[in-house]
Amino acid sequence: MSEPAPIAVSMGEPAGIGPDLILQLYANRAELALPPFIVFGSMAFLAARARRLGLSINFAQTTVAQAAAEFPVALPVAHIDGLVPDKPGDTSPLSGKVVIEAISRAVAETLAGKCRAIVTAPIHKAALYTAGFRYPGHTEFLAALCGNGGPAPRAVMMLAHEGFRVVPLTIHVPLRDVPGLITGRLIRDTAQIVEHDLRTRFGIDEPRIAVTGLNPHAGVIGAIGTEENDIIVPAVVAARARQLRVEGPFPSDTVFPRAIGGAFDGVVTMFHDQGQIALKLIGLGQGITLLAGFPVPIATPGHGTAFDIAGTGQAKVEGLAAAVSLVARMMR
Amino acid sequence: MSEPAPIAVSMGEPAGIGPDLILQLYANRAELALPPFIVFGSMAFLAARARRLGLSINFAQTTVAQAAAEFPVALPVAHIDGLVPDKPGDTSPLSGKVVIEAISRAVAETLAGKCRAIVTAPIHKAALYTAGFRYPGHTEFLAALCGNGGPAPRAVMMLAHEGFRVVPLTIHVPLRDVPGLITGRLIRDTAQIVEHDLRTRFGIDEPRIAVTGLNPHAGVIGAIGTEENDIIVPAVVAARARQLRVEGPFPSDTVFPRAIGGAFDGVVTMFHDQGQIALKLIGLGQGITLLAGFPVPIATPGHGTAFDIAGTGQAKVEGLAAAVSLVARMMR
Repeated sequence: MSEPAPIAVSMGEPAGIGPDLILQLYANRAELALPPFIVFGSMAFLAARARRLGLSINFAQTTVAQAAAEFPVALPVAHIDGLVPDKPGDTSPLSGKVVIEAISRAVAETLAGKCRAIVTAPIHKAALYTAGFRYPGHTEFLAALCGNGGPAPRAVMMLAHEGFRVVPLTIHVPLRDVPGLITGRLIRDTAQIVEHDLRTRFGIDEPRIAVTGLNPHAGVIGAIGTEENDIIVPAVVAARARQLRVEGPFPSDTVFPRAIGGAFDGVVTMFHDQGQIALKLIGLGQGITLLAGFPVPIATPGHGTAFDIAGTGQAKVEGLAAAVSLVARMMR
Repeated sequence: MSEPAPIAVSMGEPAGIGPDLILQLYANRAELALPPFIVFGSMAFLAARARRLGLSINFAQTTVAQAAAEFPVALPVAHIDGLVPDKPGDTSPLSGKVVIEAISRAVAETLAGKCRAIVTAPIHKAALYTAGFRYPGHTEFLAALCGNGGPAPRAVMMLAHEGFRVVPLTIHVPLRDVPGLITGRLIRDTAQIVEHDLRTRFGIDEPRIAVTGLNPHAGVIGAIGTEENDIIVPAVVAARARQLRVEGPFPSDTVFPRAIGGAFDGVVTMFHDQGQIALKLIGLGQGITLLAGFPVPIATPGHGTAFDIAGTGQAKVEGLAAAVSLVARMMR
């Protein structure tokens, strides 16, 4: 019987908590009931960080094909050459090349079907720019890699906490710019991508998708703001005409208790804080970010590099563990 | 020993659930451990609604001075003459005069010190316009009445659920208009009013007030939007120079778990849904709206007239009960 394909985990910023979490994850693999994974990163660095953390871990510098077989006895590492100093909290221009290459290799192996999904540990963009990184962020880089030279898939971020999934139409933009960025096409296309991923990756038949309003009480049908009538209602009607089970616009304050209660499989929001307020109130830590619309499952824990606690062992492993468990349950 | 001054309760829209709730509240006064209150409204109408609801209630048409003494045996009513049809769900131009007069009399008796606080049942503005109502809403009318011919106090709405209190700087305005409405003066003055009310009405020494940001992650110090640096930070600095314990701007997603955990006594938000999302997720029903900055305590349940269930006994009494209990604990 052949082993299942492992999950590809990219090392992330070495000055941050990503490597700590990967090592802690492996040390607790039995307790957390984790499927086999392989780390893309520097073998020497990971061993140094494990010593710093006092973790007794065997490492296996290996190939993706051997990873699942090695996993019970040693942490499989797809080694990437390059100098990576073990200096928690202190970014180095030296390590950028390995960080970038780790992500590229993880994506390539997964697109080739040798890994089943990707989990990325957090990066620190500024540290990568000196190494030639040319993308606004992690997500755009992953999109370009998945495009594989052709057009990149549009990144749709899905923030998940158990069955509650939030998809913001706009993310890190000034609130002032949000109304101008909301278009009918954006809503329709996003709903379609989300519906597709909920169906094909999560196995949900006819997923129910809620769309929030932009204005208080979703504009009370035009009395407070015009975007609901002019943009959101027509987009919901158009999505339904495509046989998608999309409903809304719903007031953003009342929709979340309903969605958490199970009325919807996903909530498309107009801006970042609508969903984040709800997620932070119900979530353990930061939740998980999934990239929808990509050819392979990709997830990342919602937290950042947390330089202040890197190398101390204080970072909480739940976010990365949840990301690994989630992509393992997703279908390709 | 003199009886404590009763709480003034205005009847609200007769086609809505306000009268139902007042009657249910009285019927359950012992169980809910409610302090004495007196209803301002039509005696004949209230008796008709009680019969409709199958509630066996004694009524006492009485004065404010006698209300507390009557309360154990009969619902005290400060009767207001006028025809009020008992037609649940069906507004009538006839009843507007009584609804308006009920609010006016409740405010007058409370300003005169004969009632200790006011709780208003929900009104339906459209039904009042034919009766000569000239205000945008309940709150502006209450402000004008409290101004008593002079300048009206600025209404500051405080949405409360137990120790978690949210004060939105803007309420029912399009999201598009929010950035232009946020000014340093608005933030400073609101923080001062909130601080004053938390201190004098709730007895909190040196209340701690959080101010949210407008943009995602509170603008990450200027990287996403300019309002934090240009407006909010200087306003917080100015408020602190007035010896107020104001902090922020905080990201609106992470501040609510902290406030609910007790880190702050009040949270000043930039727009309606920031706080409403949090309140609806943690609140039982709709919470309570308090008017801060007024000469007397005024509260109203967060729900509306709910015409669809008026007269059926299905309305949930918790919101009005919480409003009465809360103002009874507030100091004058």
